[in-house]
Amino acid sequence: MKALVYDGIETLGYRDVPKAEAREGEHLIRIMASGICGSDMHAYLGHDDRRPAPLILGHEAAGIIEGGPDDGRRATINPLVTCGSCAACLAGRENLCGDRQIISMPPREGAFAQYVAMPNRNLVTVPDAVPLSKAALTEPLAVSWHAARLALEAIHPKMERTALVIGGGAIGLAAALALHAMGVENVTIAEPNDKRRAFLAERCNLSVTDNATQPATVVIDAVGYAATRAQASAIAAPGGVIAHVGLGEHADGLDVRRMTLQEITFIGTYTYTAQDFRDTAQAIFDNRFGPLDWIEERALSDGAQAFRELRQGSVAAPKIVLDPWS
Amino acid sequence: MKALVYDGIETLGYRDVPKAEAREGEHLIRIMASGICGSDMHAYLGHDDRRPAPLILGHEAAGIIEGGPDDGRRATINPLVTCGSCAACLAGRENLCGDRQIISMPPREGAFAQYVAMPNRNLVTVPDAVPLSKAALTEPLAVSWHAARLALEAIHPKMERTALVIGGGAIGLAAALALHAMGVENVTIAEPNDKRRAFLAERCNLSVTDNATQPATVVIDAVGYAATRAQASAIAAPGGVIAHVGLGEHADGLDVRRMTLQEITFIGTYTYTAQDFRDTAQAIFDNRFGPLDWIEERALSDGAQAFRELRQGSVAAPKIVLDPWS
Repeated sequence: MKALVYDGIETLGYRDVPKAEAREGEHLIRIMASGICGSDMHAYLGHDDRRPAPLILGHEAAGIIEGGPDDGRRATINPLVTCGSCAACLAGRENLCGDRQIISMPPREGAFAQYVAMPNRNLVTVPDAVPLSKAALTEPLAVSWHAARLALEAIHPKMERTALVIGGGAIGLAAALALHAMGVENVTIAEPNDKRRAFLAERCNLSVTDNATQPATVVIDAVGYAATRAQASAIAAPGGVIAHVGLGEHADGLDVRRMTLQEITFIGTYTYTAQDFRDTAQAIFDNRFGPLDWIEERALSDGAQAFRELRQGSVAAPKIVLDPWS
Repeated sequence: MKALVYDGIETLGYRDVPKAEAREGEHLIRIMASGICGSDMHAYLGHDDRRPAPLILGHEAAGIIEGGPDDGRRATINPLVTCGSCAACLAGRENLCGDRQIISMPPREGAFAQYVAMPNRNLVTVPDAVPLSKAALTEPLAVSWHAARLALEAIHPKMERTALVIGGGAIGLAAALALHAMGVENVTIAEPNDKRRAFLAERCNLSVTDNATQPATVVIDAVGYAATRAQASAIAAPGGVIAHVGLGEHADGLDVRRMTLQEITFIGTYTYTAQDFRDTAQAIFDNRFGPLDWIEERALSDGAQAFRELRQGSVAAPKIVLDPWS
């Protein structure tokens, strides 16, 4: 099969590799759409020890089951493979499973390829009316859905719900859409880049700012750097909640004194539970995230160029989705 | 009246000052017991900008109402004076009131004095059988009760409840007692000081360690320094909760990467709600904190010496309570 292989820092090769094989209890999925994530870029730049070259990246994918009794079933893929039997899995917090694996991280190859093998329980059937390129957004949307859900569960029930999302990339955009889908009306995205801000306002009809000054009871840090954590802990309202997504910098930034004096809660969030993933897929199918018309589709064979352009900051669309068959 | 006045760094003067006066809606309280808190020590060392000299410190007090229709009523004092009408107060989160005041911080003088004036709603009646020196522990116990309550409310309901308390001072000891009172059986205090550890184990019958290695689902940082936050964020179990009390250092320490990958929640906690204060007082009256026989009583006139000994680390008891009338 064809795959886009990460061969070393800023080096991707499009070439033939051995075809993925389904093990016991797994399906072989013909990948039809596979999105590029910030964490793929992180690995591409050599910043992720968990993803050593050579490796097939990509974990935001949808496709069609090939072979077996489910042949032809369209599905979006939850890339998180968990044991199903530990305390975390049994509590419905599969993302905390000690044995968790994710495709695009050894021992599992990723979805920038024509095929991937996945357990049946990782697949959510996609209705015929929903394009698979849109279904491939389930994974990044689920990350933000999960963070938004945890933040809203943590917020005191008597607090007004006003949200600030820091960062207008795909995760920030998805967080704003998830918060809206969950009934939060007052949502603003803080984004310093003029082009991104214009895109979010004009194409996605979202409220944006380059200089957030109003306290918010819910803050989603969709960047994960010391500077964004400093901003989050400065602007969260007393008694408010910060949900933190992203692994930009490992430490620093939080104003712990203010968080203590003003009782601000900080929630580290990682991926999503299986239920979050299913709920997110259903919300996509029900159009609760809006039209999701802000993706840019390209051929997997042009993937290396897409990474270069993302690296240069010359891509306007919040998400590029690669097609391994075009 | 006599008072112990903070006159400047490491300088306390015991002398006559104008007697406290009750304003409209306030009672005059004859202080019978007033505990020394870590934050008093912090101010004494000149580390708290919010407490400039000259100032009467002290905010852990109990006494007897003097004058008016309630003359002679024994009461423990909630030192947090709040507006009662803002959104935070109406939500029962008085500790987040934007107009909050605390005695021992301008404009309110503290309770290292023979009298303090307080609004009626800040007083909780103490049964005759409970000594006022024990009732004066309500405030520090309420701080820990509040932190423990928030942590247990935040922990996922399907998680086992195992607790590590970092720091074996009064707040750490109180946190361990509060967790026990709330039904958490597995509680360990991590404390590096041998004498303190021996005291906690032998006098308070608590589980202690100088080298915590077992993950805990609930971690209470009862110290609030970068090093203790580093320990808390390293040892909290995946999906666990850290409740943070204390203002030792303003920033640093948290391993945000691990907190993100393992979904650890960090809750800044400050003082207590009015309900927490009442619940804590009731738990004292019901002996749910145990005998509370670890206080050392001294005369207020010897207060300067008590501060010096606390500063030197030569006091074995977790709490010194000063008596303004002996």
